Amino acid sequence: MEILQTEIAVAELHAATLHASLADVSMESMNLLNQVADTYPDAISFAAGRPYEGFYDVAQIHEHLQVFCDHLRSRRGLGEAEIARTLFQYGATKGIIGDLVARSLAVDEGIDADPSSVVVTVGCQEAMFLLLRALRADDRDAVLAPSPTYVGLTGAALLADMPVLPVRTAAHGIDLDDLLRRLRTARAEGKRVRACYVTPDFANPVGVSLPLADRHRLLDIAAGEDLLLLEDNAYGLLNSAADRPPTLKSLDRHRRVVYLGSFAKTGMPGARVGYVVADQRVTGHGGGDVLLADELSKLKSMLTVNTSPIAQAVIGGKLLAHDCSLVAANRQETEVYRRNLRQVLDGLEQRLGDRAGVTWNAPTGGFFIVLTVPFTVDDALLQHAARHHGVLFTPMRHFYGASAGFRQLRLSISTLTSDRIEQGLDRLAALIEERLDEGTGERPGEFEAPGAQEGAGEPLPGEVA
Amino acid sequence: MEILQTEIAVAELHAATLHASLADVSMESMNLLNQVADTYPDAISFAAGRPYEGFYDVAQIHEHLQVFCDHLRSRRGLGEAEIARTLFQYGATKGIIGDLVARSLAVDEGIDADPSSVVVTVGCQEAMFLLLRALRADDRDAVLAPSPTYVGLTGAALLADMPVLPVRTAAHGIDLDDLLRRLRTARAEGKRVRACYVTPDFANPVGVSLPLADRHRLLDIAAGEDLLLLEDNAYGLLNSAADRPPTLKSLDRHRRVVYLGSFAKTGMPGARVGYVVADQRVTGHGGGDVLLADELSKLKSMLTVNTSPIAQAVIGGKLLAHDCSLVAANRQETEVYRRNLRQVLDGLEQRLGDRAGVTWNAPTGGFFIVLTVPFTVDDALLQHAARHHGVLFTPMRHFYGASAGFRQLRLSISTLTSDRIEQGLDRLAALIEERLDEGTGERPGEFEAPGAQEGAGEPLPGEVA
Repeated sequence: MEILQTEIAVAELHAATLHASLADVSMESMNLLNQVADTYPDAISFAAGRPYEGFYDVAQIHEHLQVFCDHLRSRRGLGEAEIARTLFQYGATKGIIGDLVARSLAVDEGIDADPSSVVVTVGCQEAMFLLLRALRADDRDAVLAPSPTYVGLTGAALLADMPVLPVRTAAHGIDLDDLLRRLRTARAEGKRVRACYVTPDFANPVGVSLPLADRHRLLDIAAGEDLLLLEDNAYGLLNSAADRPPTLKSLDRHRRVVYLGSFAKTGMPGARVGYVVADQRVTGHGGGDVLLADELSKLKSMLTVNTSPIAQAVIGGKLLAHDCSLVAANRQETEVYRRNLRQVLDGLEQRLGDRAGVTWNAPTGGFFIVLTVPFTVDDALLQHAARHHGVLFTPMRHFYGASAGFRQLRLSISTLTSDRIEQGLDRLAALIEERLDEGTGERPGEFEAPGAQEGAGEPLPGEVA
Repeated sequence: MEILQTEIAVAELHAATLHASLADVSMESMNLLNQVADTYPDAISFAAGRPYEGFYDVAQIHEHLQVFCDHLRSRRGLGEAEIARTLFQYGATKGIIGDLVARSLAVDEGIDADPSSVVVTVGCQEAMFLLLRALRADDRDAVLAPSPTYVGLTGAALLADMPVLPVRTAAHGIDLDDLLRRLRTARAEGKRVRACYVTPDFANPVGVSLPLADRHRLLDIAAGEDLLLLEDNAYGLLNSAADRPPTLKSLDRHRRVVYLGSFAKTGMPGARVGYVVADQRVTGHGGGDVLLADELSKLKSMLTVNTSPIAQAVIGGKLLAHDCSLVAANRQETEVYRRNLRQVLDGLEQRLGDRAGVTWNAPTGGFFIVLTVPFTVDDALLQHAARHHGVLFTPMRHFYGASAGFRQLRLSISTLTSDRIEQGLDRLAALIEERLDEGTGERPGEFEAPGAQEGAGEPLPGEVA
């Protein structure tokens, strides 16, 4: 009886009483992908979208900190106690490197951002959540985003209870005719479409970039339809081409673009420092107009208080060491990515160039390539690939919320060395040959993800051309 | 016409179309307090609840990082490339110092926490949001919290759309009879009361600690009423008394307590590292039971991805340097807080001990003292104090959501030196004498915060005894 009472009293929570995001298919699928990667640590991974780590050295962290402290001393005129206070204490909610971020945007992107419109965040992920939370006033609100899309956007939207309306992806990025259709349909249904999320440069997961004409048209649509554009530019600076296309923000004349910046790929993921430039005016406050950045800062004060000034100092030091140019800071890495991308594209051509039904796109930069095959690509195939072929990739269905992409996989080229790429492509080709030999039939008894057969054999909506 | 079109096209957002939290009185009042502090930087501040910064030295950051890297090398057997990867790359969502956190809880608190139940967060603030977000499934959900309460809890609840139901604060902390009444009333109204937030040790803002008997009774109530307790222990370790009372978590036999930890006061605010211990089982998942910590980790992966491993390394190094005892790491600071608290209490007695209607409580530790006066304490008084007397405090109304505390102010003792305390108390006493001489009348023409007169002269609900 004593034991029974104790058992009854122990706290337990039922999953159905927790926030709906926890039961969403996106959360579950990311968990599954991580499990596969953890179970087969020796597999060659084309899955992880991580930056190249061959140049990492802990001494750099100490150096960056010192450079930033020197800057506080010599340029901002702080004494030792004030420098220590800047790093150790609570700090301004908007951050302590907004001026350096603005300088780097001017140097690298030709973007003219006032530091007061910059909020330094705990990675770009926090910035996405803050934005979606701010823009979500009631059940009518929604945002548009290309399908397939970055899972971080999907996750932030789930946390903010913000519906994401999918827009078709064409060969060179978001399909602007479909965007207009979706926008009008949503409005006819009573939705208040607040913004469209877009990654014009080397989008995750499709790797393609939006042509200049489309960038101009997208800005015109935003102005004409009273829409914000949430521009995510995690990869654009890692471009070896002589002429990088201009960002939406640099072309923006009507404050339509909220710019989302990440230092995960250009600085280091471990700092967890990103930012948002939000220079839109917010009216209707009692005390006078403010910037959207001020509103995001208020929300941030209740979410993470401020971004670690120690982490900001590390990124600030890295910026200062390269005259605030992230292009300059990443010359070695950019060369690695260019070489890897070329090697994977060439290697696919050599191994699979004559295979019927096996195609891939050819991005000119970024981390990702999408491969289309004439058989089902699901988590069962991933587990088979990991176990029997020692190679990992990401089934594209995860970027479509499991509604499309059933015969596509994403390859990431960013972390591997030349040897591993060759070995990994051999393994991947062996897997594909095996499946081609077998036809498109399923393996009985293998784990089958729910809905894996939906749409198989039919034209796939929203697929990358 | 050209110009007019341009004006129309520029993006503007109306405040009414943004998330309701941004218009909440709590957000507005914190903004106002910060503005006053910024406008009068030379005022002596009893307002800021910041840790003492007299021992800060940037060299410590470098040392902590080195100690942690040595630990990775010698205890976890990592090579240099792996150490660099640990600090630079994306890391485990739950964090990389969960084992050290668990050890420190065992050493300092006698809490037996499995590292798998620990999620390292971006300060305790993120942990509060994650918890409230997880526990908020629909409109029925609510949490209880003492009134007055920490504004960070109020803010996190606003962001999570989670209503906070106030519980009366008695002389020694949360009033357990009122808790039961509020709980039953809420349930009768159809609410699903998920948890009660509580700070048993030196609560912010009232400074008092819950007696041992109340701690046991609170745990019994939680078990009997199927309630979680969210125990926030930001100040408990900074206790100079020989016998610290046990935390709720250390007394918990039924996994009723979710423990919220902060390194802001015991480590340094600038690391922005906190954590949550959530060892509750979550049932009803397809794939088997998980811990609440696993669910919080899933939410975190979509909010901040992971807490900066660099920031975690700084805190990890500080823990390692003191054999994982934060009590040992904070001996100097604890002595400063003890001395300051004594000095402020003695100084109040000397200056205001014989003034009718002027009283204060006498916490035995922590950062805060609450002063009750026979006149209105509002933002107008604060601005007057800052401008004409050069002294800052926090009107208690801000911790009541502007519904009570109209004649109370909070004094923080944590950051000031001995000289500044004497000078500040002289200024505060001059302000109080001035107001006592004038009676309780208001100054015409001065800024009057909305609702400042509500309840004046009547018994104040929820006031600290």
